Amino acid sequence: MRIARYRYQDAVSFGFVTANGIVDHAEVPGLIATTVRELLAQGTDSLTSLEGLPTIPLSDVTLEVPVELGKVLCAGVNFPLHRAEGGLSPDRPQWPVIFSRFPDSHVASGEPIVKPTVSDLFDYEGELAVVIGKRAHNVPKAEALDYVWGYAAYNDGSVRDWQMHTPQWVPGKNFFRSGAIGPWIVSKDETGDINSRVLETRVNGEVRQHVLLGEALFSVEELIEYVSTFTPLEPGDIIAAGTPSGVGAAMDPKGFVRVGDVVEVEVSGIGVLTNTVTE
Amino acid sequence: MRIARYRYQDAVSFGFVTANGIVDHAEVPGLIATTVRELLAQGTDSLTSLEGLPTIPLSDVTLEVPVELGKVLCAGVNFPLHRAEGGLSPDRPQWPVIFSRFPDSHVASGEPIVKPTVSDLFDYEGELAVVIGKRAHNVPKAEALDYVWGYAAYNDGSVRDWQMHTPQWVPGKNFFRSGAIGPWIVSKDETGDINSRVLETRVNGEVRQHVLLGEALFSVEELIEYVSTFTPLEPGDIIAAGTPSGVGAAMDPKGFVRVGDVVEVEVSGIGVLTNTVTE
Repeated sequence: MRIARYRYQDAVSFGFVTANGIVDHAEVPGLIATTVRELLAQGTDSLTSLEGLPTIPLSDVTLEVPVELGKVLCAGVNFPLHRAEGGLSPDRPQWPVIFSRFPDSHVASGEPIVKPTVSDLFDYEGELAVVIGKRAHNVPKAEALDYVWGYAAYNDGSVRDWQMHTPQWVPGKNFFRSGAIGPWIVSKDETGDINSRVLETRVNGEVRQHVLLGEALFSVEELIEYVSTFTPLEPGDIIAAGTPSGVGAAMDPKGFVRVGDVVEVEVSGIGVLTNTVTE
Repeated sequence: MRIARYRYQDAVSFGFVTANGIVDHAEVPGLIATTVRELLAQGTDSLTSLEGLPTIPLSDVTLEVPVELGKVLCAGVNFPLHRAEGGLSPDRPQWPVIFSRFPDSHVASGEPIVKPTVSDLFDYEGELAVVIGKRAHNVPKAEALDYVWGYAAYNDGSVRDWQMHTPQWVPGKNFFRSGAIGPWIVSKDETGDINSRVLETRVNGEVRQHVLLGEALFSVEELIEYVSTFTPLEPGDIIAAGTPSGVGAAMDPKGFVRVGDVVEVEVSGIGVLTNTVTE
């Protein structure tokens, strides 16, 4: 199941992405949720078949961020070669590195991501976004996947000088509309084992990052266990699982993105998150 | 003007704290806001006098967090002697240290703050909370006070081992119900120059922190300028302005708080934020 939020005929709505187009939620018998967060909280297992319902061509909608964002927690330096390119030991540390992003630091696929005028060190970080499906507080690793609804592609857009002003990364990770999530959210039953999926980031078509998600040092289950120990997660909350090697800051010469560049983050089996850089 | 949120006769409401008791918002002619955030966004300058309106005794209500929380940004190591007690140079660095807390990591005055079971290193950090009064994005320092509605007392409750698991402090600063804000919010016209106010933290009546707020390295105006460069602030958003020396982690022996301890954070001219530690 693929859930998208979108603007269609001047109204924002949500629905299900099928091979024939989008089935708006209002067309689905028995579906009473008015937001994607509500839908995830109610559960999607009992939804009847979408076959035969009216569809909207995907080309007729403008995508919105696929779930109304609440908490967004991000894992840092969670892939061995990205640790190494940043000057860290590639070994797994004792604890995951976790920071947070505000909802309004994200845009949808197809919307521009914004390079701030105060910096030219605007970088991409392609990631997997984990979408929580039920309230998770103090969840042990062995049960953690029960709390996952599904996944999306994620760009943890980073303003490197502001990230490094002090040891706390929050400023450089929270510039208004500097990151992205989408193009939609895909249920875990459709993705299958997420560790077998491939993440790839491209800038103007050039592959910059390419990794098997199973190479992450802390797994999705381990990140949920750690994060849910300090903060309760609700349906629709997001954990971004960290970026692999190949960020612009680690390239020689530097590969920062500029106005007009097109950044794509693709997770196999999920889709392509596409954003053009603006200022 | 002092605005409180509270539970009274099984309903949550908000109103104005006066010498005679609380005037519920529903008693105020022309006031149409349904939340404190809405009220701040509409502005409070044109409110008619509260004299003669019915009041509720303060002792008849249970306080709630005084404004519905959205973004909460916190300044770290922003007082010289607190920098020194943490092993840093007491000098002002080039940039303020900024991290963030989720709304549900806070409780109201009178509610228990929660020491997590996973740690015994639960610490207080008395602070000034700045309450934003109008949307602030890219605000220069010289205009920053125009964007402040007022102030409250704040406890940036910190779980020190989880704060120091990695260089990113977010986990140890975001434990569920580990911090507090209140007891109400006080308008800047009532506090006057905030730099002349005194912040004091007491544990079971013992003074642990005591400082003139004007000793902060980055002023309220400078924090707003810096923060509003990367993230837009809305009415009701909070900037916590940093804690002075005297935290439990810097005491010998350590002064961490335990179940049953009473933590008070007082800002002169604002009030006392009181919380008992529970687990």
